[in-house]
Amino acid sequence: MGMDPYLLTPGPLTTSLTTKKAMLHDWGTRDSHFHDLTSKIRTFLVNLIKGQDNFVCIPMQGSGTFAVEAAIGTLIPKTGKLLIPNNGAYCQRVIEICEYLNRAYDEISFQENMPMCPQRIRQHLIENPDITHVVVVHCETSSGIMNPLKEISQVVAELDRKLIIDAMSTFGAIPIHSNEIIFDAIVASANKCLEGIPGLGFVIANHSTLQTSEGNSHSLSLDLYKQYTYMEKTKQWRFTPPTHVTAGFWQAIQEYIEEGGLEGRLARYENNCNVLVTGMRELGFSTLLDNSIMSPIIVTFHMPPDKNFNFTTFYDKLKQQGFIIYPGKLTIADTFRIGCIGKISQKEIKILLSNIRVIINEMNIQQFSPVLDNIS
Amino acid sequence: MGMDPYLLTPGPLTTSLTTKKAMLHDWGTRDSHFHDLTSKIRTFLVNLIKGQDNFVCIPMQGSGTFAVEAAIGTLIPKTGKLLIPNNGAYCQRVIEICEYLNRAYDEISFQENMPMCPQRIRQHLIENPDITHVVVVHCETSSGIMNPLKEISQVVAELDRKLIIDAMSTFGAIPIHSNEIIFDAIVASANKCLEGIPGLGFVIANHSTLQTSEGNSHSLSLDLYKQYTYMEKTKQWRFTPPTHVTAGFWQAIQEYIEEGGLEGRLARYENNCNVLVTGMRELGFSTLLDNSIMSPIIVTFHMPPDKNFNFTTFYDKLKQQGFIIYPGKLTIADTFRIGCIGKISQKEIKILLSNIRVIINEMNIQQFSPVLDNIS
Repeated sequence: MGMDPYLLTPGPLTTSLTTKKAMLHDWGTRDSHFHDLTSKIRTFLVNLIKGQDNFVCIPMQGSGTFAVEAAIGTLIPKTGKLLIPNNGAYCQRVIEICEYLNRAYDEISFQENMPMCPQRIRQHLIENPDITHVVVVHCETSSGIMNPLKEISQVVAELDRKLIIDAMSTFGAIPIHSNEIIFDAIVASANKCLEGIPGLGFVIANHSTLQTSEGNSHSLSLDLYKQYTYMEKTKQWRFTPPTHVTAGFWQAIQEYIEEGGLEGRLARYENNCNVLVTGMRELGFSTLLDNSIMSPIIVTFHMPPDKNFNFTTFYDKLKQQGFIIYPGKLTIADTFRIGCIGKISQKEIKILLSNIRVIINEMNIQQFSPVLDNIS
Repeated sequence: MGMDPYLLTPGPLTTSLTTKKAMLHDWGTRDSHFHDLTSKIRTFLVNLIKGQDNFVCIPMQGSGTFAVEAAIGTLIPKTGKLLIPNNGAYCQRVIEICEYLNRAYDEISFQENMPMCPQRIRQHLIENPDITHVVVVHCETSSGIMNPLKEISQVVAELDRKLIIDAMSTFGAIPIHSNEIIFDAIVASANKCLEGIPGLGFVIANHSTLQTSEGNSHSLSLDLYKQYTYMEKTKQWRFTPPTHVTAGFWQAIQEYIEEGGLEGRLARYENNCNVLVTGMRELGFSTLLDNSIMSPIIVTFHMPPDKNFNFTTFYDKLKQQGFIIYPGKLTIADTFRIGCIGKISQKEIKILLSNIRVIINEMNIQQFSPVLDNIS
């Protein structure tokens, strides 16, 4: 790692040196070694959701948003109508995609610090029989809130609609098994909890759904159906793949397996989160969310309302000590965020906390909690 | 490089070890170091076409095709109509994009081994005043043919239409200066003649055109206008950038400058091409194209019609010796291709030729040239 700062952000994240070193080679895209690499990654990801019987994985070049757009554009027929429960920026992004694609949608707004309510989703689906699909964000990293995925999936399945899950920031750390949660597709990226390199997302889609999705896509590049059929036929990606990023991803997956897979990864992140939240509360900071709805992915803290607190100064001082944190992304409160994921452990979190203690003393911060109002 | 084979293909290509080593770090996307990296790359690319006065560079996540689709979708109004001169697979891909985007277009078909004819383009534009844009592929790597870009640009400008250039495989090696060739946008990728890492393309667009292109894009992810305005405002990419690939690209650009920029790069590729073509002809192989229309990017050879020649065997034997070549992509003749670009020099080309000599002796190939017909 050398001098690189730790990236305590929603991504890109800190990756292991061995993952990065896996990129020190060049691959031809028609080469059988590269075909094997792609194939093994796809199989691994399907197995991770226990989807061997009826799911297939389609990798997609670009950021996670490219994969989300590809899934919506390809898997939802042009005549479909979406329901988008919205409690943050990534839900809002799904709405933006629908606007670009001219797809009909309804939105249910929730407060940014409140989990989505399955009962309101149920009610809306009952009252709107024209809705065919629900798109739900599992963990809203704009706040760090966990949405009740299982309950939502039950409502959606019971009312015979289809569910697409944006599991960008939870995939690989929070269990989502296709034999427990009913869904049509799940979207994530290489460089969140799987700790790969940014540049590659993926969709794990129900095979039957995918097979009926020819001709849906609004985009040549983002046509999942064509990416899938071309890959099945030729073992190649449809357009130039990010070969080095793909190789880094496979190495990251090896390290994930060595850590004990999902259980091992989740245990480390939960521990990171517990150490972080406990330590920050001891220092006086307060979290936006109660523990019960907090994710072990990223934690939102209130900005201290103290007149001596300046976020840019705080950020810069932490950066000088080798830690990159993240500003807030909320409208309801002044906040900042600290991530718990990536190749970091409680050791780094404890050093971070020591640094924060020194910095708040230097800045002479006395008041940490906002005046309580109806948002807390 | 160690054991990596040389990639004598249209891409991904062989890159330098130092370019790959530039990826051994992690960057936060809000970090000023990464902002500087992005900014320096964008400025360098604009300067390369002498576009400082009226062009801006917009990087795009994904393969080169993503950038081509982004350019067409964003820069051509929905009411526009395209003319697509077609002499190969990459021209065909532009047509496919228009089909996906429901953009009106006309096609002029040329034979795959013939350069586009500016006079036919002129005639078509005169007869079809509703055409607003011409999209031209500079070097068709499916054959390696160079299209007469300067003459086409003159015709398009004279008849007051706009030109978008797909310069994927020539950018950085074949000069395209905005003060000599009139165009609205040029599209290329990091990992062709600039010898960067795959995963990143870019569009260099006329600033005025870009500023009038709000609302055109069919895709959230591929909206160049929004990528541009967001980047100008925040210095950040709109969605997670391929940080490692970006860092590799900047290192590749340093090595490009050290080699003498475009002149140095072109000289090496021309030499590679000359050594390759001369050597292959000495061995008995014939090229699809005459020297006058051949590019120094990739060369198409006829498959020997000898009954002892089997391309898979030939390919595998070369692969065992550390050279990856490429099958043909033509309908008019059985061919294979050998690339001249990437981090290779005449030294590697000469070793390749020695290997080919041995292999054709082993395979006992006597007949190299196809029976002449109207395609030769």
